[in-house]
Amino acid sequence: MKFDIQRDHLLNGVNDVLKAVSSKTTIPILTGIKLDATKDGLALTGSDADITIQAFIPAEKDGEELIHVTEPGSIVLQARMFNEIVRKLPTNDVEIEVADSYETRIRSGKSDFHLIGLDASEYPMTPDVTNDSQFTLAADLLKQIIRETVFAVSASESRPVLTGVNWQVKDKDLVCVATDSHRLARRKVALDNLPTNMTGVAIPGKSLNELSKVLPDDQTSVDIYLNAQQVVFKTNDVVFYSRLLEGNYPDTSRLIPEEYQTTIKLNGKELLQAIDRASLLARGDRNNVVRLSIVDNQTIEISSNSPEVGKVEEQIPVEVFEGDDLRISFSAKFMMDALKAIDGQEVVIQFTGAMRPFILRSVHDDAILQLILPVRTY
Amino acid sequence: MKFDIQRDHLLNGVNDVLKAVSSKTTIPILTGIKLDATKDGLALTGSDADITIQAFIPAEKDGEELIHVTEPGSIVLQARMFNEIVRKLPTNDVEIEVADSYETRIRSGKSDFHLIGLDASEYPMTPDVTNDSQFTLAADLLKQIIRETVFAVSASESRPVLTGVNWQVKDKDLVCVATDSHRLARRKVALDNLPTNMTGVAIPGKSLNELSKVLPDDQTSVDIYLNAQQVVFKTNDVVFYSRLLEGNYPDTSRLIPEEYQTTIKLNGKELLQAIDRASLLARGDRNNVVRLSIVDNQTIEISSNSPEVGKVEEQIPVEVFEGDDLRISFSAKFMMDALKAIDGQEVVIQFTGAMRPFILRSVHDDAILQLILPVRTY
Repeated sequence: MKFDIQRDHLLNGVNDVLKAVSSKTTIPILTGIKLDATKDGLALTGSDADITIQAFIPAEKDGEELIHVTEPGSIVLQARMFNEIVRKLPTNDVEIEVADSYETRIRSGKSDFHLIGLDASEYPMTPDVTNDSQFTLAADLLKQIIRETVFAVSASESRPVLTGVNWQVKDKDLVCVATDSHRLARRKVALDNLPTNMTGVAIPGKSLNELSKVLPDDQTSVDIYLNAQQVVFKTNDVVFYSRLLEGNYPDTSRLIPEEYQTTIKLNGKELLQAIDRASLLARGDRNNVVRLSIVDNQTIEISSNSPEVGKVEEQIPVEVFEGDDLRISFSAKFMMDALKAIDGQEVVIQFTGAMRPFILRSVHDDAILQLILPVRTY
Repeated sequence: MKFDIQRDHLLNGVNDVLKAVSSKTTIPILTGIKLDATKDGLALTGSDADITIQAFIPAEKDGEELIHVTEPGSIVLQARMFNEIVRKLPTNDVEIEVADSYETRIRSGKSDFHLIGLDASEYPMTPDVTNDSQFTLAADLLKQIIRETVFAVSASESRPVLTGVNWQVKDKDLVCVATDSHRLARRKVALDNLPTNMTGVAIPGKSLNELSKVLPDDQTSVDIYLNAQQVVFKTNDVVFYSRLLEGNYPDTSRLIPEEYQTTIKLNGKELLQAIDRASLLARGDRNNVVRLSIVDNQTIEISSNSPEVGKVEEQIPVEVFEGDDLRISFSAKFMMDALKAIDGQEVVIQFTGAMRPFILRSVHDDAILQLILPVRTY
């Protein structure tokens, strides 16, 4: 293997695939990044066995030569070491050459590195996706869906399937749901190109978080391939593979109340900030609990009380109040997560009594629903 | 106590004094910040017993009223809680009022906090400095002196006095020295106003690092007061107290060689980057050791070799070479620290053989001297 490449392009690719490489892996070859040079360009692969990321740097882009491959071939190089070396090379012109017995020479300016590589044929193969269910989303919409749901996955491994976000097709909607059994986040997206044969899957929350970091913030097309074991997200530059979680995802639709006794409509940003302040005095105390009380039909009060530290009260105007009086306590963190997902819009909150789950929605958009279970405080 | 204050000024003051507050303190009252409101303004104090920082917000500045004190008084409030609350208050107008039994009300907009405070009379007094040796430095020069020396203090507590920077007056110079017995950093500053009666002191490296964060990057005058137990740095806004280290600081002047067998002059930034690259392959291996070899009278080579990982070589041009051939090994970290302190200037390095300490100086400025002990590699 021998090629010349521009450092900046190499560094971008290495940074992408490095996100899949774990320093905790027990499989020695997975501490490395695989380089495959062909006449078409350079493919880089990183993996922790659960997630695999592949970046492709084409030989030519927009008429500019990014890589000049003199001799095709493959090698695996220590991921973190290789990344640091590429980052610190003195010039933008880099030559990489593999000699006998996997010794890899990296030259740039007057720097001359010799790294001991590993046999690329021992690196795990990436699976074939040609027979999978397939549909397409824009990168920015996909990142938005992830942001609105992934925070609600369970952090506990006691029911592994709840550490993932459930994706399923219902009618013409893609429905994405996450729950840790104390709160739930649901996002629906109407899509024309959804496969009818797609079964519900649970994508690990960790995978979705990493995927978000790799995808651009624009309308780049992301092709999504699904089968029973794995999901693949593919753009022109990057291919992201994740295993799926095993087990049946619970039916969460029954959790969502069908009728409500109290409805308020108010500014979500004002509420978020008031809860953030109230949570300061609730920290570490009874699971970070704050209280919401109806004061009158134009005002609610957010309060928190911690006998050793002090207390705080704050009144917030509501635009609409309908239904019964209410006093309800909940986790400040769950409420802030939900309000951040809805993102500062005008928010509708609907309650079914102080001990029943309540839901939050945007006034402008019915696609996002957040559900929170209250906390008993007496 | 009762006063109105602008949040931004309060927050700046709290941020400064918070740097002295340690969450690890065993003295409960030191988890708090002391507020003293007088008709002149508000004094804030934070301390971890070793370092004490006081910030003063005047009642009026440049004709603008920053604080309006209705009732003078004092209180101690939980430092981190108070900081978070101030940071998150909804408006820039803040009212703070202490009622009976230390309950402190903080109001801003519609937020209403009640914090349980502590008795300010139990907070440790700050010492009097009126009889101490005194001189003055500009803040930016003081920060520069700290930056050029403090990294070389010992991280080990086996000889506590070496965890500090030694300051002493010699002729008309302030001489600042730090050493961990493997390397040494020395900075001299010629000053007219130095006290003649000042004895050498050892200022904890930790205190100097914190002081740097509090001082502005300009020519603000810093009045420095010294006695046998403590040092005080005072500007119009902030007073910084630090205890001094006990014990006699060793005489380090004998460590510096008086004659040299090899002298090179070269670009410090090029050398720094080459050593940074070479250190990648030396990491974790034999104390991060790299080698410098004279190639010819215009070139040196920086190299590193790690049998399991690989090796790297890089040649660097030298502007001047005088004396004997040389091949010497040293800690990449120590060399990079020293070159960063000299800061990218043209650098002179003088050697007295492969097993003797060598020194680095700037070509342009004799005030900084860095000394490093080589590492035996055979």
